[in-house]
Amino acid sequence: MDAFPDPPEVPLDLAVRIGCKLQYETSAETSMLLNLKPRHDAYQFIADEHSAITPAVPTTEFDDDHNNHVLRLSLHPGLSTIEYDAIVNVPSQSEDFAHLDEPHSPQRLPANLLRYTLPSRYCDSDNLRDFAWQHFGQQRQGIERVQAICNWLNKNIEYRTGSGNAEIAAKDVIGRGYGVCRDFAHCGVALCRTFNLPARYVSGYVPDIACFDPGTPMDFHAYFEVYMGGRWQVFDARFNTPRTGRIRISTGYDASSCAFSTFYGAAELRWFEVWSYQVDPATTRVGDPLDLSKRLCGTPEIRRPGEAPTEMASAA
Amino acid sequence: MDAFPDPPEVPLDLAVRIGCKLQYETSAETSMLLNLKPRHDAYQFIADEHSAITPAVPTTEFDDDHNNHVLRLSLHPGLSTIEYDAIVNVPSQSEDFAHLDEPHSPQRLPANLLRYTLPSRYCDSDNLRDFAWQHFGQQRQGIERVQAICNWLNKNIEYRTGSGNAEIAAKDVIGRGYGVCRDFAHCGVALCRTFNLPARYVSGYVPDIACFDPGTPMDFHAYFEVYMGGRWQVFDARFNTPRTGRIRISTGYDASSCAFSTFYGAAELRWFEVWSYQVDPATTRVGDPLDLSKRLCGTPEIRRPGEAPTEMASAA
Amino acid sequence: MDAFPDPPEVPLDLAVRIGCKLQYETSAETSMLLNLKPRHDAYQFIADEHSAITPAVPTTEFDDDHNNHVLRLSLHPGLSTIEYDAIVNVPSQSEDFAHLDEPHSPQRLPANLLRYTLPSRYCDSDNLRDFAWQHFGQQRQGIERVQAICNWLNKNIEYRTGSGNAEIAAKDVIGRGYGVCRDFAHCGVALCRTFNLPARYVSGYVPDIACFDPGTPMDFHAYFEVYMGGRWQVFDARFNTPRTGRIRISTGYDASSCAFSTFYGAAELRWFEVWSYQVDPATTRVGDPLDLSKRLCGTPEIRRPGEAPTEMASAA
Amino acid sequence: MDAFPDPPEVPLDLAVRIGCKLQYETSAETSMLLNLKPRHDAYQFIADEHSAITPAVPTTEFDDDHNNHVLRLSLHPGLSTIEYDAIVNVPSQSEDFAHLDEPHSPQRLPANLLRYTLPSRYCDSDNLRDFAWQHFGQQRQGIERVQAICNWLNKNIEYRTGSGNAEIAAKDVIGRGYGVCRDFAHCGVALCRTFNLPARYVSGYVPDIACFDPGTPMDFHAYFEVYMGGRWQVFDARFNTPRTGRIRISTGYDASSCAFSTFYGAAELRWFEVWSYQVDPATTRVGDPLDLSKRLCGTPEIRRPGEAPTEMASAA
Repeated sequence: MDAFPDPPEVPLDLAVRIGCKLQYETSAETSMLLNLKPRHDAYQFIADEHSAITPAVPTTEFDDDHNNHVLRLSLHPGLSTIEYDAIVNVPSQSEDFAHLDEPHSPQRLPANLLRYTLPSRYCDSDNLRDFAWQHFGQQRQGIERVQAICNWLNKNIEYRTGSGNAEIAAKDVIGRGYGVCRDFAHCGVALCRTFNLPARYVSGYVPDIACFDPGTPMDFHAYFEVYMGGRWQVFDARFNTPRTGRIRISTGYDASSCAFSTFYGAAELRWFEVWSYQVDPATTRVGDPLDLSKRLCGTPEIRRPGEAPTEMASAA
Repeated sequence: MDAFPDPPEVPLDLAVRIGCKLQYETSAETSMLLNLKPRHDAYQFIADEHSAITPAVPTTEFDDDHNNHVLRLSLHPGLSTIEYDAIVNVPSQSEDFAHLDEPHSPQRLPANLLRYTLPSRYCDSDNLRDFAWQHFGQQRQGIERVQAICNWLNKNIEYRTGSGNAEIAAKDVIGRGYGVCRDFAHCGVALCRTFNLPARYVSGYVPDIACFDPGTPMDFHAYFEVYMGGRWQVFDARFNTPRTGRIRISTGYDASSCAFSTFYGAAELRWFEVWSYQVDPATTRVGDPLDLSKRLCGTPEIRRPGEAPTEMASAA
Repeated sequence: MDAFPDPPEVPLDLAVRIGCKLQYETSAETSMLLNLKPRHDAYQFIADEHSAITPAVPTTEFDDDHNNHVLRLSLHPGLSTIEYDAIVNVPSQSEDFAHLDEPHSPQRLPANLLRYTLPSRYCDSDNLRDFAWQHFGQQRQGIERVQAICNWLNKNIEYRTGSGNAEIAAKDVIGRGYGVCRDFAHCGVALCRTFNLPARYVSGYVPDIACFDPGTPMDFHAYFEVYMGGRWQVFDARFNTPRTGRIRISTGYDASSCAFSTFYGAAELRWFEVWSYQVDPATTRVGDPLDLSKRLCGTPEIRRPGEAPTEMASAA
Repeated sequence: MDAFPDPPEVPLDLAVRIGCKLQYETSAETSMLLNLKPRHDAYQFIADEHSAITPAVPTTEFDDDHNNHVLRLSLHPGLSTIEYDAIVNVPSQSEDFAHLDEPHSPQRLPANLLRYTLPSRYCDSDNLRDFAWQHFGQQRQGIERVQAICNWLNKNIEYRTGSGNAEIAAKDVIGRGYGVCRDFAHCGVALCRTFNLPARYVSGYVPDIACFDPGTPMDFHAYFEVYMGGRWQVFDARFNTPRTGRIRISTGYDASSCAFSTFYGAAELRWFEVWSYQVDPATTRVGDPLDLSKRLCGTPEIRRPGEAPTEMASAA
């Protein structure tokens, strides 16, 4: 007999192409860290990966203290291009199938998860205690409460493109009433922590599977996870509806743990492109040129590999 | 041949009694974490320790991700007393004997120390970059620059008892111009990090060896360490003079990593007492009642065990 | 709701004094590691500790990869004395109260425990697979099987004082039919691993609480633990009866992970003394001279602190 | 100024295709671990990777305590195929360019490397102490001694195909006088450890760059590394000549830390194929069928990408 029921085993029957291309210009040898690579877990199998740094420089890798994969390198002066491209197998089932409503008391949490119950720079739960108890104190501890938090944020915080700001924490976001996905995630994390629910910030890719393409440029997306029932469970106050095919890159206290790049010195970003869309792995390989005509997602229904690509990739 | 010259081996010829007594009142079973216990290192040998929690409850220990020793327990409702008492051997030489002026380039730092170069909640180095380069950009990287930072803080930030505030970060402290030891430490850490010097916050004990007793109640003290020459080196912008017998308890990003107690639920602090003074280990044992008449420190000259205790323990 | 029922909370109502005195003679500066210090857990609270190394040398500490506490130092040439003395609070209830018969399938074990299912130098489970299935294949997986293993070893392996030998592994022990406590532990661990039960070797102290004093010199004792029901559970094929007041020092793959001392160079052991006996903490303090007339254990009944010490400490 | 001179930065100007195909037949759901994936370091950049498990099953990954990448899964009953394919950029310079003759004293080693100085199951340095001092006691500590060990093993141990045996340790190998690459590695590691040189076993790929193809089937290869001058340095007592393009997969105490597969239950190996050969990345992609006509290595001279493939791939 085992502790918690295993998350149900579901087939990873869809393939998502994810990746990014970054170009930086530096005027001197510049050390940097890259945090771009997702890891295998029960719902994301990294089938193919391509990495390139041009011009080539020596790289080493290490795992940071949130178990993110970090590549460490030093760019030569001039223009450098960093490419990461992957095909990841994911389930066609929407992500809430893995939810389990079993909150833990703090006393029973694994010791290494206690840190995710404490305030952090952008998830300043200590500053939100009264607010949280006033708004969510009535809810039952567990998914009901987490969902109430997501609902409140989704309804009361306006999504405002371009309002991102590295100085504001969850309390400020709630105070000003608008933000970007990072801010929604910070608020969700902070409010869960006020109830001693371990919560962590996540940076990942969210393809538009079973959704209309919003027509905006693809980008990384921030959301959060709450630890209940012996597993980390996905929540997203920004979209606030279970998605299909989400792929986690990195996790941590808050956005400060999940920067995709960190520089020791000055670097100008000259190109920034992110992709995340469903493909047929029989016809798309990593390293191929991006070809959105092969995109299988962006429509309300899920298309299987082998089915014809979406005619209208954009909601426009 | 080895990389960096070893820190000089010096005799640990003095003994310091350190410890604290904390009383909390709780109205329900309340989980908590305690972070009170120093560790052996080349300049602090924990000769004797006494720990007591009354009423007794089960405890477990773990090391947090900054390698601090954490005791985990759940207090029963009512009044609980926590006592920690230790005798620690320390050198009579002042702490700067271990300084080595060899800053590392970021590219050569051990991977697990890179995190100490990044901004954190209270050490918001990203917000101080311009300030730092304007004030300390001319100094040579290494001890000269770190010392310039300490000098500036010591001269320009007023020490104001009771001004501690869990909401303000280094930039705010510099803005308002006053603070407590925690704030001096946050500023020192943040400013070093703007120059890619790994810096960490430290909570510890600082006995008044080779100093007049300031006459204020003994307390924990916050200061900071900078990693150069393959070792962590002590700096203290508050006192800004090398001390003797300092004992490190915990380290981390900033004060948020070094709380001596963390509660999951409400607890009223009913008693708070900290001690840190030089003793003769032949006549003082852990668990003994506190007896400041046996104190050997509090005078400008260092007294050895066996010499008569200080007549006047206070500067008053 | 939580996964496994918590181990029952029981009062730590007895106090055991444990410790050792080691003397080494070296002809040159000699690096060494010491692994002597138990840690707090739910059934052992380290109330008082005394450590001394004479002549004093710098020491640092680290946790090894089995989470043992290791003290690192370099002895000066000549005679060095190492003393460790502690008073540890333990329950008067016998240790099997924490048993829980819930074996895990390998697929559900925490990733960091998988290594305890694999063969190791002295616990060569791969060489015992046929033997194990032949002898214990019929038993139900879990405590029934582990107990059958202990029973078989206790009955079929002769305890032979002085037969310890750093070259023989579990298979050899079973082949020759005799051994010391270390060998019993190696066999227990190896046989459990053949059934994919995570098992680890333990070095600790076993006072004679609720037992006649066997009259032999006190020593460290080796036994083992099996991970079931979300917790490590004690078994001891040598004594094969639940004990009271056992105190774990170190754990690992096998004896090679749990050496109390490791030398880089030659050292002659000149004195070796171990103690482990129940005391009244009101009348015995760490650092006191050993005084076995104050011993409370060594009799079939348990004596509480405050009751008169045992008149006859030896079974002779 | 930094501690040790950086390993020279050299261009990773060659590309090696490595990988394996494994088929297992199981009669029941069978948990397993896979340890196949190399990591980025300064001399191996993983440009492309392809992984497949057929039929697909959920997988998770973790790092074991030697920092190897482990994939954890449970095979369904029947036939399962595991494929890993990668293109790795490596330098054309032979591996000894990174050697640095700076042995560390044990006292100055990083704490987490001390374990690589101790005996392990197959690297039983404790049993070889007399032998080692007798044969290599005269050599200077450092590369001279390590090279003397390799020379002795290469000359005195006969390579005998098919003589691999999971029961024999270094002492046995030296006693019987023959072995496979695993045995050469175990002996090298064990003998270095007798001199307190941290040494670890490595499993990796060794393409035949700048070598005639020996004509034997490609396979994983075992060799070892010694920690000197602040870096792990490659040695290989079997080939005993610096190679080009070696790619490390996993490291550890000995072969027991580096198994490419570990089963919890029975599994029949039905197919085993390993590849490791230089390619032109412009014409070879991961996931392509194996096509040795595109092989660039197997000749004494190094061919650059773009040059014609080797006509005669075999020494025969």
